[in-house]
Amino acid sequence: MPFSKKIQEVKSYLLQLQDQICDMIETEDGKKCERDHWEKSGPLKGGGRTHVWENGNVIEKGGVNFSYVEGNKMPPSATANRPELVGRSFKAMGVSLVIHPESPFAPTSHANVRFFVAEKDGEEPVWWFGGGFDMTPYYGFKEDCIHWHQTAFDCCQKFGPEKYSKFKKWCDDYFYLKHRDEQRGIGGLFFDDLNEGSFADCFAFMKAVGEGYIKAYQPILNRRKNLPYNKSQKEFQEYRRGRYVEFNLVFDRGTLFGLQSGGRTESILMSLPNKVRWQYRREEDIGSIEQELYDYYLKPKDWIKEK
Amino acid sequence: MPFSKKIQEVKSYLLQLQDQICDMIETEDGKKCERDHWEKSGPLKGGGRTHVWENGNVIEKGGVNFSYVEGNKMPPSATANRPELVGRSFKAMGVSLVIHPESPFAPTSHANVRFFVAEKDGEEPVWWFGGGFDMTPYYGFKEDCIHWHQTAFDCCQKFGPEKYSKFKKWCDDYFYLKHRDEQRGIGGLFFDDLNEGSFADCFAFMKAVGEGYIKAYQPILNRRKNLPYNKSQKEFQEYRRGRYVEFNLVFDRGTLFGLQSGGRTESILMSLPNKVRWQYRREEDIGSIEQELYDYYLKPKDWIKEK
Repeated sequence: MPFSKKIQEVKSYLLQLQDQICDMIETEDGKKCERDHWEKSGPLKGGGRTHVWENGNVIEKGGVNFSYVEGNKMPPSATANRPELVGRSFKAMGVSLVIHPESPFAPTSHANVRFFVAEKDGEEPVWWFGGGFDMTPYYGFKEDCIHWHQTAFDCCQKFGPEKYSKFKKWCDDYFYLKHRDEQRGIGGLFFDDLNEGSFADCFAFMKAVGEGYIKAYQPILNRRKNLPYNKSQKEFQEYRRGRYVEFNLVFDRGTLFGLQSGGRTESILMSLPNKVRWQYRREEDIGSIEQELYDYYLKPKDWIKEK
Repeated sequence: MPFSKKIQEVKSYLLQLQDQICDMIETEDGKKCERDHWEKSGPLKGGGRTHVWENGNVIEKGGVNFSYVEGNKMPPSATANRPELVGRSFKAMGVSLVIHPESPFAPTSHANVRFFVAEKDGEEPVWWFGGGFDMTPYYGFKEDCIHWHQTAFDCCQKFGPEKYSKFKKWCDDYFYLKHRDEQRGIGGLFFDDLNEGSFADCFAFMKAVGEGYIKAYQPILNRRKNLPYNKSQKEFQEYRRGRYVEFNLVFDRGTLFGLQSGGRTESILMSLPNKVRWQYRREEDIGSIEQELYDYYLKPKDWIKEK
């Protein structure tokens, strides 16, 4: 099969995955997303489909985006550690999503699957997959965290015994706010540069992660979305969302690369929550359920063994 | 005069300036700030006085901070472009403030004055001053912008004819959000590495800027703080505050340096507003007063000539 056909297969899959995820969110929310399809010219040309919920019944703000980009020359930041890629053209594509529910009892979730290929006439294409999913609760529920990680474990299972533990650790290491000495959430999976075994194996793993996200998130969203909450719980959620903003704007490589390379700002910053607040030296009461978030849920652990 | 005495003089001045600014804000707000004095050990040792308003009568969130830090070795980021400083010990101190009023008609203001000295036994100390002030309106008032810049012009006046235009341009260039192609606000003054003429001249200029901030901001805060506003104007302010967060977390050198070098996170992120919101592709009505902010106020201009 010529490689261009493989690229087309990945693209078709990603578009279908986007629809499948949007169907799930629409089912839970009851409101259709707004669909914004765009194209972009310039040295990095590309396009995408940005699907957005704002002030839905269940989702305060959410975006499930497909985008692709291609260029004649790899950006310098991408070749700094991979000199073999200098001078190659490239294509990148992915589905990226963040869901911020209205209820402080329903966690924020993030997922991303992506594919990258660097090409040069007369040489083999260099390609890799990346992705993962991770969850950020405001009020922790042990059964949700166990379900999330059990689903992550299950979708890794047939790809080798070390996959879950390796990508779970990578996720904990990546979603870490150094200036707070805090995890962003309870983790999940994170992988990059995946080019091990055949193209078919790697593609199958990316698919398992994409579909794993749906299985991981839907039941949690479903059982938490309608729990009643009060004003101070909502405020705690808005305060904690500040950490999400801090992570995405200070640390997240995809966000910073996108903003610096002239990506589509509104699609990139879709990941930011609607309402957020910062407070100086906010502290929770000792023994409170809010303090438990810091002391128990935001400490990396082997969730599957917490059963 | 030994140089250590000069350092002491700068420090005394900065502490007094902090009090003077806090008195002004307390006068306008009617509420006393919370005072949080702290010390910090480790390779960068230092301390400071963080003075904070949260949910004041007029100020939704504000901080006026004094801090100093000293180390045996210049941080690598500070010597990258100045190899002559490698191996020197250093002391840095400054007053830094951000005021976010409750009313969308009262602009956010920011000011900073700072002093840096790098020392080595048997050699002359290398020192410089930096600072400035800038304003971020949500609803523009031409007379406020003219007053702000006229005051900036006046405090530069006796230090040379080119100071205002040079530092005004530097401010416009610095407070720019590349990914939005937008200014953060209407500017003011920004200077760094000031070591021209005598120590006394430079110190006097820093003092003029510190006191200039009070003269520039107080009348504006006073005449806007009690104007009635509605819910949609408040939402526009919260939306626009998102740009402030984006600037500070993505671009602001002081913020990033502080977070990366293990500074005191809560004091550094004092600059972030309390309530903030993001919305996907928000657009203002053509001809609206909100759209005028983008089309007129956020375009760099010679404000003094707008009279």
